[in-house]
Parts: sequence; structure tokens; C-alpha cells
Amino acid sequence: MAPWKAARVGDALDQIDTPALILDLDAFERNVQLLQDAMSSTGVRLRPHAKSHKCPEIALRQIKAGAVGICCQKVSEAAVFVAAGVPDILITNQVIGEQKIMHALDLAQQARIGILVDHADNVSAFARASAERQVSIDLYIEVDVGMGRCGTTSIEQTVELARQIDQAPYLNFMGLQCYHGSAQHYRHPQDRQSAIAAVCAKAAEAKAAIEKVGIAVERITGAGTGSVMLEGTSTIFNEVQAGSYILMDRDYAKNQHDASDLPFEHALFIKTAILSHPTLGRAVVDAGLKASSVDSGMPLVWQRTDASYLKASDEHGVLELTADSPLKLGDSIMLIPGHCDPTVNLYDEMICVRGNAVEAIWPIAARGALL
Amino acid sequence: MAPWKAARVGDALDQIDTPALILDLDAFERNVQLLQDAMSSTGVRLRPHAKSHKCPEIALRQIKAGAVGICCQKVSEAAVFVAAGVPDILITNQVIGEQKIMHALDLAQQARIGILVDHADNVSAFARASAERQVSIDLYIEVDVGMGRCGTTSIEQTVELARQIDQAPYLNFMGLQCYHGSAQHYRHPQDRQSAIAAVCAKAAEAKAAIEKVGIAVERITGAGTGSVMLEGTSTIFNEVQAGSYILMDRDYAKNQHDASDLPFEHALFIKTAILSHPTLGRAVVDAGLKASSVDSGMPLVWQRTDASYLKASDEHGVLELTADSPLKLGDSIMLIPGHCDPTVNLYDEMICVRGNAVEAIWPIAARGALL
Repeated sequence: MAPWKAARVGDALDQIDTPALILDLDAFERNVQLLQDAMSSTGVRLRPHAKSHKCPEIALRQIKAGAVGICCQKVSEAAVFVAAGVPDILITNQVIGEQKIMHALDLAQQARIGILVDHADNVSAFARASAERQVSIDLYIEVDVGMGRCGTTSIEQTVELARQIDQAPYLNFMGLQCYHGSAQHYRHPQDRQSAIAAVCAKAAEAKAAIEKVGIAVERITGAGTGSVMLEGTSTIFNEVQAGSYILMDRDYAKNQHDASDLPFEHALFIKTAILSHPTLGRAVVDAGLKASSVDSGMPLVWQRTDASYLKASDEHGVLELTADSPLKLGDSIMLIPGHCDPTVNLYDEMICVRGNAVEAIWPIAARGALL
Repeated sequence: MAPWKAARVGDALDQIDTPALILDLDAFERNVQLLQDAMSSTGVRLRPHAKSHKCPEIALRQIKAGAVGICCQKVSEAAVFVAAGVPDILITNQVIGEQKIMHALDLAQQARIGILVDHADNVSAFARASAERQVSIDLYIEVDVGMGRCGTTSIEQTVELARQIDQAPYLNFMGLQCYHGSAQHYRHPQDRQSAIAAVCAKAAEAKAAIEKVGIAVERITGAGTGSVMLEGTSTIFNEVQAGSYILMDRDYAKNQHDASDLPFEHALFIKTAILSHPTLGRAVVDAGLKASSVDSGMPLVWQRTDASYLKASDEHGVLELTADSPLKLGDSIMLIPGHCDPTVNLYDEMICVRGNAVEAIWPIAARGALL
């Protein structure tokens, strides 16, 4: 990492060196409260996904606001949050291999830990290891509800896994993970609504089939920022896992909304400066694809009509400027990243700004926690 | 970062946890030697770009093999290499703003440091700051030789900047940066040849114009892995800056070659494991776009015909398998990343393997050095 910092607490916004990852605290806090209030009013548990922010300071604030815990995607990511005092984590991923299973059970001795399964061999491995160590852990069956990635693909397989978990003394069968990732980015509200209606039907069918063999399904969990109000008001889901809602990125801003969607605000920015201005219509900023992940498209230039971000190379971003743009060498602009999750993962710290001043600097402690 | 390590020195390849970034030391060492030998035989200086690897262990080995120093892209990146003992660094980028200029001059007191300029205001700022602090620094004019990113766009401007630098007592005018980034990825050798022929013509023209006003142009520097033999044998360039050649990625492997190109080998891999295998034709690995940057395309499954990497989400990669693929849950495969530079920047360590054993673990010390 850089041997010096982009900013110190108390700095003004224009003193922050570039490129830097900026969190607008006012917008962030409004986003946290908005979803929490919506879920509290429905009685649905909010378990926000921490893969978006990887920042214990944020997780602890979400829990203080009413979240039941957080989600993580990796065992090593969860370990960072357990160490920071988060008491309840669902790892929304399969945990495969002896090393990872041992680490997950270590964590389960320090906090409430859940993991996903979709294969009998993996359940057997967890059953064996948990019994040997006499450590309990929560298991959720991941059901493929339409995304075509992980998850069980038949009711019979789902019921069989539930039986297998139910018979293992140290495995707590908790319920079903029913997440439809691609539906989060369907642009039209009707498309998201019909996708999540199908998700709910599959979830309800799987739950009924498991309960028919006498096993209780306590939890149906899933949802993301693009569809959270659909699962949240479905009466099928009793827990939701949105993550990006606190930050919001350019890709999510492309979703069209109707009255049922919550008005989350952009709270995550990249401050970047013009390092070259070779022609009237072209400038180059110091934030390229190592400063703003481009997997879901280029970043958006924030609140300017005279500049658009055209293309990214490793350390450069090319701006197209209007002929009358006043931007000059050294000027800084704010970008909204195309995709918040992998962008946050490029930085060691989030510079938290309120109004025009740096109020705090939060370590992105789980950045790079890939294992 | 993860609170535990993916591997320890002495581990066998199959003990390395996933996902992990693997450097094949034999292939890496052959790549280092191959380009060094080619440049030594032409008398052209090799100054490899460190933005690809961000790893002091690698830079020091390149210098030991005969490189004159390294290139960096950021001042903070250069600071990491200066601290590790690299004595000569060219920052192939504009350094704008008082804070960055001060850091660059700090470094110039500890090592030989060069930077690029393409704007009179920036030369003035460096002239002022270097005189105030009585610290000398090397300046190179970046000429836009066809990429359309940074750089001067007319001979008159180039000559004017050379004069301005020449008149500043603490600024050493060294020469011209003539890098054509996009040409590195032109697939056909003839297209690269004609692009670099045009680069050489522009470089020679700019050099002649500057020398005509009585200012010596000691260095013409540039080139990348896709074109390095073209600049290296041009007689116009006396320094080349290839970086990716030591690692090689899937994108570079897509270039078609002719006899003049050097046969660099893939030396950078991602070890990843199958965490879900929901259907006969589909498996999911634990390396997604936070483990392998997808800006230049999906990773390649290494030396297997039964699996291809179809799509990436944050922490998942979906494989398409042939019907007879023997791959099963927990099996690991090796990936060649689409683009090595931003992929390396996702990891804290490179796990260096020789044959089947972990020989060393090298910190990617400049990872995340964005300032």
C-alpha cells in the first residue's frame, strides 16, 4: 500500500489526495436507516451483506441500527468481522475443503456462524468435522431460484440434504438461501417483480416439501439491493441480505424504479484529479481501472454535464469534455464507480466525509480476504 | 486482508488454499532472461515496468539480471521500491499537485527519479519546487505517438517544453517518452509493426526538432510487451519498458506472433477450487472478479479441454464443463488471468512455486499504492 495517506481527519474535501475512496456519511446514514425502517415495519430481519463494504465500522453501525448480523462471502472475510466484534455472520457461500471447514468451525466457537451447502459430500464433511470437534454450526441449503450459479436444482435433492443435515448432531438446519443475483440488475421493475415472484414460488415449494418430512424451516433468506422490497414484502422471506444499498453504484442507478422501491442515494465516490489535458475535448484523470472496477461499466462523472468518463486503462481514465468545459490541469472531480463491491476492494481505507470535512477514516479491513 | 495465509514455504502445490496467486519461478526466470538477453545484444537499456508486478523481489531480480532500473506509474508506488533499495525509477506518468510533487522530490533525494511532463504549468511547478528545495530530478516529455491519451500533440509544444525544462536549474531534461499502449494489443504482427514504425517516425522528428534548438535528447524510451522487439531493434529507442513479459496473461496470449517476437511463457496463475457442481455441465469455482480482473476478458482454464471459464461475479466463476469432465467438488484448477496488472493488484502475496513446491512467498508490497 501507499506509504502515506490520502487524507487526515479534519482535512477539507479539497485537501484529499487523489485517487481516493470517499464515503458521504450523511447519504450513507440515510441509506442505512431507510432500509432498516422499511424492514422493521414488515418484521423481516435485515442481515446486510458485508462483501460490498468489507468494513467493520460499517457493519457495527448497521447492527446498531437494527440489523441482526451480517453476511460475508468468504470464511477469511468473516474472520475479520468476528475479530471486530460482529456476533452473527452468515457466509453466503459453499465452504469446501478441510482447511476452510476448520477455519469456519474455529469461527463458530467465537460467534454464530452459518454457511451454505448444495452438495451431500460437503454436508458429510461438515457433519464429520463438527462432530469430531463438538462445535455447532448453522447450515442453510442454497436453492437455485433462477440464477443458474450454485444451489440445488431439484426438490428431491433439497429435501435429501435437509434430512442429511437434520441427522447430524452438530449441524443446525436453519433454512434456505434463495438469492437471485442476476434479477438485481434487471432494468425494468416488472422484470424484477416477475423474477422474484418465481423465486418466492420456488422457495415456498422447497419449504413445504422439507416441512412435509417433519423438518422445520426457520429461515428463508436472500435478496439484494435491486429487489429487496420484493422479497421483504413477500411474506415468504423472513430475512433479506442487501449490501450495496448503503453505497449505491452506477450500475444500480441504471435500474428503473417504481413507487415500491426505496430511494437509496449514492454515498460512495472516487475523488480523482486531471493529470493531463492534451486537447480541448480530452482530459485524463488519475483514476483508472485499479481505482474503479470497470467490470460493470465505466464510472459516472458526478454532477457535471461537461465531462464524461470514456475509457479506463490501469492508472488512467480518459474524459471527453465539452468545448466550454472549465476543467483544467489539477482540478478534481468525483466519480460514481460502475460497481461498488470490487471498487471498495481496491482500497485500504474509506475516507468518510461530512459536508466539506473529513470526519473519520475507516479501514477496509477485509479487503483482499479471498480465502 | 485474510487473517491467515494461503500457503507456507515448503508446501506442495496441492496444499495451497484457494484462490491464490501463483508465480511459476522457472517460467518467470526464463522470461526475465529472454528479454534481458535480447536487449543486451542490441545495446538497448531495459527498464521493466513494475506496475505489472508491484513486487520489490521481482524488481531486484530484474536489475540483477541487467535492467537499468524500473518504471512505476505512481509516486507512492515508486516510494515502495525506493524503500526496498531500487536505485533508479522512472515514473511514467504526470505528477500533478503540490503534495505529489513534494513526495517525488523527497524520493529524488534518495534515488534517481524521473517523471513525465506534457504541460507547461506542470513544468513550472516542478521548476519552482525543485529550485526551492535544491533537489534535482529527471524530466521526460511525453509525446502522444498515437495512443490518444496523455502527451504533447505538436512538435512546437514539445520543443517549447524542452526549452522550459532546459532553463530550469534543477530539472534535468532527459528525453522523450514515446509509448503506444493500444498497439501492444493489436492482434496482427503487421498492425503492430506499422503502428510502431509511425511511433518511431514521430519520436525521431521530435528529437530532431529539439536538437535543432541546441538541446540534447539523451533518451527515447517506451515500448511494452506486445511490441518490445520493434522498439528494441528500431535504432530510435535506446530504452524499453515492457512489464507484463515476466508474467504474461490471456490477453497478451491472443496476439499473433511472427519470428521477431520473443516466446514469453505464462508464469502467473490463479489456483482456484470447485465449490459447487450443480449440474453435469456446470461447476462454480471460488475465483471471481475479486480474484482475477475481467477488464480484458475472462481468465483461461490452463491446460484443460474439459472446462472453460464462462462468467465471473464478485466471488464466483462459472465453468462450462464437457459431459465427460472428471472435475468434482473440491478439485482445483489453474487459471491464466485475462489481464495480469490489475489481477496482481488484488493480492497481498505471490506464492512462488518451483515444480510442485512453494519455494518463496513474495509480498506485493506496492499493491494498492494509488497516490
